[in-house]
Amino acid sequence: MPLLTDQWKIIEEGWDPKQHQGSESLFSLGNGHMGQRANFEEDYSGQHLQGSYVAGIYYPDKTRVGWWKNGYPEYFAKVLNSVNWIGIKIEAEGRSLDLHTVPVTDFYRELNMKEGYLLRSFIAEIQPGKKLKIEAQRFLSLKRKEIGAIRYSITPVNFSGKLSFTPYLDFDVVNHDSNYDEKFWEGISQEAGEQTAMVIAKTKKLDFQVAAAMAYELHAGDNLLTLESAASTRNKYAENHFEIDGLEGSTYHLYKYAAVVSSLNHAKDKLSQAAEQLAEDAREAGFQRLLNEQKNLWAKYWQNSDIRIDGDAKAQQAIRYNIFQLTQTYTGDDPRLNIGPKGFTGEKYGGSTYWDTEAYCLPFYMASAGQEVAKNLLVYRYRHLEKAIENARKLGFTNGAALYPMVTMNGEECHNEWEITFEEIHRNGAIAFAIYNYTRYYGDENYLAEYGLEVLIGIARFWAQRVNWSAAKEQYVMLGVTGPNEYENNVNNNWYTSYIARWTLQYTLESIETVRKNDAARLEVILEKTAFNSHTEVSRWKDIINKMFLPEDKELGIFLQQENYLDKEQLTAADLNPAERPINQHWSWDRILRSCFIKQADVLQGIYLFEDDFDRATIERNFDFYEPRTLHESSLSPCVHVVIAAYLDKMDKAYELYLRTSRLDLDDYNKEVHEGLHITSMAGTWLSVVEGFGGMRVRDGHLHFDPKLPEGWKSLSFKIRFRHSTLELDCRPDSFELHNHSAEDVSVWIKGKEYPVQANAHTQSAYA
Amino acid sequence: MPLLTDQWKIIEEGWDPKQHQGSESLFSLGNGHMGQRANFEEDYSGQHLQGSYVAGIYYPDKTRVGWWKNGYPEYFAKVLNSVNWIGIKIEAEGRSLDLHTVPVTDFYRELNMKEGYLLRSFIAEIQPGKKLKIEAQRFLSLKRKEIGAIRYSITPVNFSGKLSFTPYLDFDVVNHDSNYDEKFWEGISQEAGEQTAMVIAKTKKLDFQVAAAMAYELHAGDNLLTLESAASTRNKYAENHFEIDGLEGSTYHLYKYAAVVSSLNHAKDKLSQAAEQLAEDAREAGFQRLLNEQKNLWAKYWQNSDIRIDGDAKAQQAIRYNIFQLTQTYTGDDPRLNIGPKGFTGEKYGGSTYWDTEAYCLPFYMASAGQEVAKNLLVYRYRHLEKAIENARKLGFTNGAALYPMVTMNGEECHNEWEITFEEIHRNGAIAFAIYNYTRYYGDENYLAEYGLEVLIGIARFWAQRVNWSAAKEQYVMLGVTGPNEYENNVNNNWYTSYIARWTLQYTLESIETVRKNDAARLEVILEKTAFNSHTEVSRWKDIINKMFLPEDKELGIFLQQENYLDKEQLTAADLNPAERPINQHWSWDRILRSCFIKQADVLQGIYLFEDDFDRATIERNFDFYEPRTLHESSLSPCVHVVIAAYLDKMDKAYELYLRTSRLDLDDYNKEVHEGLHITSMAGTWLSVVEGFGGMRVRDGHLHFDPKLPEGWKSLSFKIRFRHSTLELDCRPDSFELHNHSAEDVSVWIKGKEYPVQANAHTQSAYA
Repeated sequence: MPLLTDQWKIIEEGWDPKQHQGSESLFSLGNGHMGQRANFEEDYSGQHLQGSYVAGIYYPDKTRVGWWKNGYPEYFAKVLNSVNWIGIKIEAEGRSLDLHTVPVTDFYRELNMKEGYLLRSFIAEIQPGKKLKIEAQRFLSLKRKEIGAIRYSITPVNFSGKLSFTPYLDFDVVNHDSNYDEKFWEGISQEAGEQTAMVIAKTKKLDFQVAAAMAYELHAGDNLLTLESAASTRNKYAENHFEIDGLEGSTYHLYKYAAVVSSLNHAKDKLSQAAEQLAEDAREAGFQRLLNEQKNLWAKYWQNSDIRIDGDAKAQQAIRYNIFQLTQTYTGDDPRLNIGPKGFTGEKYGGSTYWDTEAYCLPFYMASAGQEVAKNLLVYRYRHLEKAIENARKLGFTNGAALYPMVTMNGEECHNEWEITFEEIHRNGAIAFAIYNYTRYYGDENYLAEYGLEVLIGIARFWAQRVNWSAAKEQYVMLGVTGPNEYENNVNNNWYTSYIARWTLQYTLESIETVRKNDAARLEVILEKTAFNSHTEVSRWKDIINKMFLPEDKELGIFLQQENYLDKEQLTAADLNPAERPINQHWSWDRILRSCFIKQADVLQGIYLFEDDFDRATIERNFDFYEPRTLHESSLSPCVHVVIAAYLDKMDKAYELYLRTSRLDLDDYNKEVHEGLHITSMAGTWLSVVEGFGGMRVRDGHLHFDPKLPEGWKSLSFKIRFRHSTLELDCRPDSFELHNHSAEDVSVWIKGKEYPVQANAHTQSAYA
Repeated sequence: MPLLTDQWKIIEEGWDPKQHQGSESLFSLGNGHMGQRANFEEDYSGQHLQGSYVAGIYYPDKTRVGWWKNGYPEYFAKVLNSVNWIGIKIEAEGRSLDLHTVPVTDFYRELNMKEGYLLRSFIAEIQPGKKLKIEAQRFLSLKRKEIGAIRYSITPVNFSGKLSFTPYLDFDVVNHDSNYDEKFWEGISQEAGEQTAMVIAKTKKLDFQVAAAMAYELHAGDNLLTLESAASTRNKYAENHFEIDGLEGSTYHLYKYAAVVSSLNHAKDKLSQAAEQLAEDAREAGFQRLLNEQKNLWAKYWQNSDIRIDGDAKAQQAIRYNIFQLTQTYTGDDPRLNIGPKGFTGEKYGGSTYWDTEAYCLPFYMASAGQEVAKNLLVYRYRHLEKAIENARKLGFTNGAALYPMVTMNGEECHNEWEITFEEIHRNGAIAFAIYNYTRYYGDENYLAEYGLEVLIGIARFWAQRVNWSAAKEQYVMLGVTGPNEYENNVNNNWYTSYIARWTLQYTLESIETVRKNDAARLEVILEKTAFNSHTEVSRWKDIINKMFLPEDKELGIFLQQENYLDKEQLTAADLNPAERPINQHWSWDRILRSCFIKQADVLQGIYLFEDDFDRATIERNFDFYEPRTLHESSLSPCVHVVIAAYLDKMDKAYELYLRTSRLDLDDYNKEVHEGLHITSMAGTWLSVVEGFGGMRVRDGHLHFDPKLPEGWKSLSFKIRFRHSTLELDCRPDSFELHNHSAEDVSVWIKGKEYPVQANAHTQSAYA
C-alpha cells in the first residue's frame, strides 16, 4: 500500500497491519528533546515496536561479543526506550479497542509536516454492527520541549453505550535490542490523583531520572465534562480510569497532556514538581493554543529551511520529509546532544553520534539552522577531547593522540567490532574536516583559537603515530584500516583515509599559523596545554605530508580504494543477480570482502570532500570507475554520488540516486524502515539538492552556485544562511532569481559569474 | 609452588588454593571415553572448575555475537560438562570436610602416569586438635571405558567419633562457558537404593541421554562393613547417606564405582540397565582388580609409545606427561570421536575437532597407536564430507566444493568469527595433507580409492573456486584469508595457504592417476559420484598450478607471509617490552594486526610440511627471518620451530623451544592452565622429539633418522610403528642402537646411511 504523494503531508490510507511497524517509523514525531514513534494511543496487540525516547538519556548495556578482543569497550550505550506517555486504553460495548482484533475501515494516517503533528482516524466495528469513529491528533511541542499533547476523539457512530477511558503512564518498557533481555528502568514512585498521574523512574547504572506527569480533560463537543475517575498504580505505572455514557453521534474529546522531564535538565529533587507544573500549564493553555504555538514555530523553521521543487511532486514531498525529520531530531540548543543515525525513531545502532554528524549533517545545520547550532555540533566533540585521547591511549597511542569513537553517547567508544571500532579511523578525519568546513563557511577563525586547534592537534598526532615508515616502499603507509566502504575490512593504504590523514596534518600546521597570526598569546597557551613540540612534531608531520603513500593506478588514471584493489575480480553492479541484492542480506561476509563491490562512497567520498584538489577529468575517471561498482547499500552512499554526478553533468544518474536517497525510507529501498528512519542520511539528501542540483560551493569566503535541474523540474528554490546574510535562490532551467533577505550587501557567484545583491533586494538573470 | 620432577609422576606437595584450579587441569584423568578434572571428591567451596566430560556428548549452544554476519552458524557446539560421579560428602565432628574452610597439612597430589591413576592425601584438622587423614585414589578404567573407580580412605588420627559419608551422583551441573547462563541437562529420572544410585538425564535440543549408576562399599581395613544408609533424590541428583562410629587410628575405605553410559553407545531404553550392570560388575570385581587391569593396559600403551630421555629429568617427565595426556584423550577405537584442543580437561574452545588433529596429532597416533587408529582419524573427515560441501555452499561455493569447518563436533561449522570461520581456510589444506601423510607413512594407496580421493576432490574444488584471476598480476591470487598466524586477519596471498592450495590441486590430480592405476573401475565410480569433469576441471586446476601467485622477496631470499608483509615496521621479539607479553593480553587487536609479530609458524609451517621442496639455505633464510618475529603465543608454535631448528643444527634454539612446548602446561608458560590443558599441542611435543631431535622423516617408503641430541642428553630412545614393523631407536650423542621388534626385516636410513635390520634383531653403530 504505497503512501500518497502530497507536498506537505505523508499520507497513508487503508489499514495494513504488515505495513504498520514501518509506518510507526515513518510517521514518527520529535522535537529535538523527545521522540515518539507513531504507536497507537489505544492498545495494539499486533506486531509493532513501541518507542518513546528522551534525548541524552541512555543506558550502558554490557557488551555482548562472541570472542573478546583487547580494547573492546565494556559497554554499549543504548538509546533508551522511555515512558509510554501516549497510552489511552479504550473500551466500549465490553470490548477493548485493539486494531489487531477489532475490524477497522476508513483508516487514515497523516504526518503534517507543515504544522508538525500526527493525525489518525478510522472506524472500528467494536461489536458487530456497532461502529466507533476515532480521530487522534498529537504532537511533541517544539516550544515546550518537555510537553506532548493529544486530542483523542471518539464518536459512537450508530449506537449509544458506555465508553471507558484509561489514560496512563507506563515506565515498564523494554528495549528490543537489550543485550541480555534486561529492563533498564527502575521505578522510584508512582501516584495517580484527580485527573492526574505521575511516574518517576531511574535508569540502572547511570541513575538518570525521568519524571512523567499527565493531566487530561474530557469534552463532549466543546463542553468540559466532570469525571469520576478511579486512580490506580503499580510499580512504574499509573493510570486513571473513567466511564461515560456515550450518545450516538456525539463526539467526545480526551485531551491528554504529558510532561516528561529528566535529571539532565532539572535537579533530581525538583523533577516531580517540574513535571507536574508543566503538565498543568499545558492543560491550562489547552490543546488549541499549544497547536497554534506548534504551527507558528514550524512556520519559522520552514521559513529558514524549506526547499521548493516545482514540477516533481514526489521529489518535493521527499525533500520536505527529510528536512522535517532532521529538524525533529536536532534543534541545536543543547551542546550535550547530537544526531543519532536513527534519531528518535528506533533502537538499532545505539549511541547517538557517528561520523555522520560531521561528514553529512553539518552542512545542513550550517545553512538552515545557523552558526550557533552548527558550532554546538563542533563543541560537542571539543568536550569529548579528553575521552578521545583516552580512547587512543587504550589502543597504544601516546602523547595526546586522539581517536574519536565510532559510536558514542558521552565521548567513550561503545562499538565492538574490531574491524570498525579500531580500524574505521577515517572518522577522525571527518571531525577535523568539520572544523575546516565550519571555519570556511563562517570565516570564524576564532573557533580555532577557542576550541578547534586543540582537537586538530590531537587528531594530527593520532595520524602521525598511526602511519609507519615502509622500508620496502620508502614511503609512509597506513596499514590495517577500514575505509568508509565497510565491504572491505583491515585493508592497507585506503586512499581516502590516507588522504584525509595527510590533509589533517597539513591543515593543523596551517591552523597553528592562523592562530599565531590572530592571537599569539592564545597559541602559546594551547601549545603549552598540549605539550606540543614545535620542532620534532612539526618536522615529522612535514615528512609524512611529503612522503605519504597514496595508491593509484596510473594506467587507468584512478586512485585505488586500497592497495591491490585491482587484484579483485572486476565486475559491476549490473553483473549481479538482482535476487542476491542487497548482498549484505545474501552473501557471506568473506565473499563480500573479497569482491570488488562497494557499499558506499570511498574514493569518491574523498573526491567529494576535496573536489578542488582534482581536475574534472580525474574526477570523471574515478566516478566512471567506482560508481558502477557501488551498490549503495549504505544509506549514506547515494547523496555523495548525486553531488559528483551533477558536477559531471550526469543528470540521469544524479536524479536516479537522488530519488534513492530522498525516498529511501518513504519507499523503503533497503527493506528496513520498520527498524527506524535513516536520519543522518536525510542530511545527505539536503546535500544532494543544494550541493548537487544547486551546485553550491564555498570558495574564498563566497558562495558559488551552479544550478542544474533534473529533467521535468520547473524550478528549485532554497534558502541559505551564510555568514551574516540569508539568501534565497530560485533556480529555473535557464535562469535564476536571487533574494538577499538580510541587511548586508552580498556577492554571489552563479555559474562562474559574480552577482552583487544589495541588502533586502533581489536580482534575476538568465545564466551566464 | 613448583611441581616436583619425577620420571613417571607429576607431584604436588603442599596445599596452595591459588594453584588448585590449575592443578585440577594438570592432574586430569581420561580414558578416551570419559574425562575428569582433578576435582576433589569431597565438597570444595573455593575457586575451582568442576568438570566431568563424556566423549561425543555435546550441546549446540545458541551463538552469541555482537554483530551478526551472514553465514555465521546458529550454534556453537560445546563440550558438555556432565554428571559429577566422583562426589562424596564427608562430615566429622559436626563439620563438613571442605579444604576451603578446614585447615590442611601434608597435602600431596600425584598423577601416576605409569599406572594411570590419581592419588591425593592430606591431613585435615576437622576441629581444633582433631585430625583426619584422607587418602583418595581414583582412575577412569582404560579397559572398562564407562567405569570410574575411587578408593576414598579416611582415618581419624587422634580421636574417635561419628564419620558421615554421602556418596552421590549429580547432573545438576553448569558449563562455565554457557552463552546464556543456561543449564544444558534435563533430568529424566533418579533413584537411590541400597548402596546404589542412578540418575538419568538428557541434553536439551539434541536429546543425548546419559545414565550414571554408582555402587559402593565401605571397608574398615580389609573388612567389609554392613551399612544402614538413607537414600534420597531430587531432580537430576541421587545420594546415599550413612554414618559410622570411627575409631581412632582405624582406616575406613569407601570404594565407589560409577558407570557412565550414553545413548551414543546404548539404546535409550537400555541405558539404565547397562549402567546398573556395569557398576555392579565393577563393584564385584573390586578396586584392586580394576587397578591391576589399569596398570596392565597402561604398561601396554607405554610399551608402544614411551620415549626415554636420559640425562634430563625435566625433559623426561615432560615428554611422558604429553604422551600420557594424549593417550588419555584419544584411543582411536571410535571413528565418531576426535581430539579436542583441551581434551577432557576444560571447557574453553568448544567443539572437538580443529585442524590440530591433522596438522599436529596424526603423526603421533600413526607412530604410536598404529594404522587403524590413524585411519579412524581420517575416516572421521570422510564422514563429514557432505557437511563440508554444505558448509562451502553456504559461503557461495558450488559444484561439490568442500570447506571443512574450523571447529566442529558433527561436521557442521560452529565457530563464529568471520576472520577465522570464513577465512582461516588453510585448515582445508591440512586435511588434504593428512591423507598424503597417512598414505606416505603406510603405503596404503587403497585409502585413496576407498575414502581419500572424494575428500581430495571436494577440497581441490574449493581451492579452484577460492582463487581468482588477477588481471593486474596476470596470476591467480587468493584474497581475504587468515593464515596459521592468527595475528593477521583478512590478508591477501598468504604464502602458506596459497602453497598448500596449489599442492592440493597437484596431489589430487596425482591421486586420480594413482586410483586409475590401481582400480580403474573404482575411479569411474568416484568420478561419477562427484560429477567430476575430467576436461574443464583438470585444465583449470593445471592452469592454477602453473600460475599461482606466491609472494616472495627475492632480495632477502624469503617467502613472504603475505603480500606486502615488508611494509610493516620490522621489529623482533627482542624489541618488545617483556611487560607487554603475551601481546594478546596487552595490545589492542588492531595493533597486533598491523605489527610484524607472528603468533605461530606460518611460512615456517609450510616449510615444515613441504621441507623436501626447499634447499637448506632457503630454509635457513626463512627461519632466520621469521623465528625472531615469532612470539609463540599459540601452543602450536614452538614444536614446528624445534623440528626446523634441529634440522638446521640450531640446537640451543631447538632445546629452548622444546622446553616451551613440552612443559607448556606443567610450567604454565601462557598463564592459562587453569582453563584446561593444551592437548593437541602435546602431539607437537612428540614431533619435537621424534622429528626434531630424532630427525625422523619418511621418504620413498622408508624411515630416515638424523639424531641430534641437546646438550646434556645422554640418550634419547623411542619406539615407532611403521608399516608392518615396530622399531626402537636408542640415540646417543655419537652412536645409536636400532631394534627391530617385528617379524620382518627392515632397512632404516640413519644420517643418510642405510642400516638393514633383520626381524627380531638389532644393530648398533657409531654415526656415519
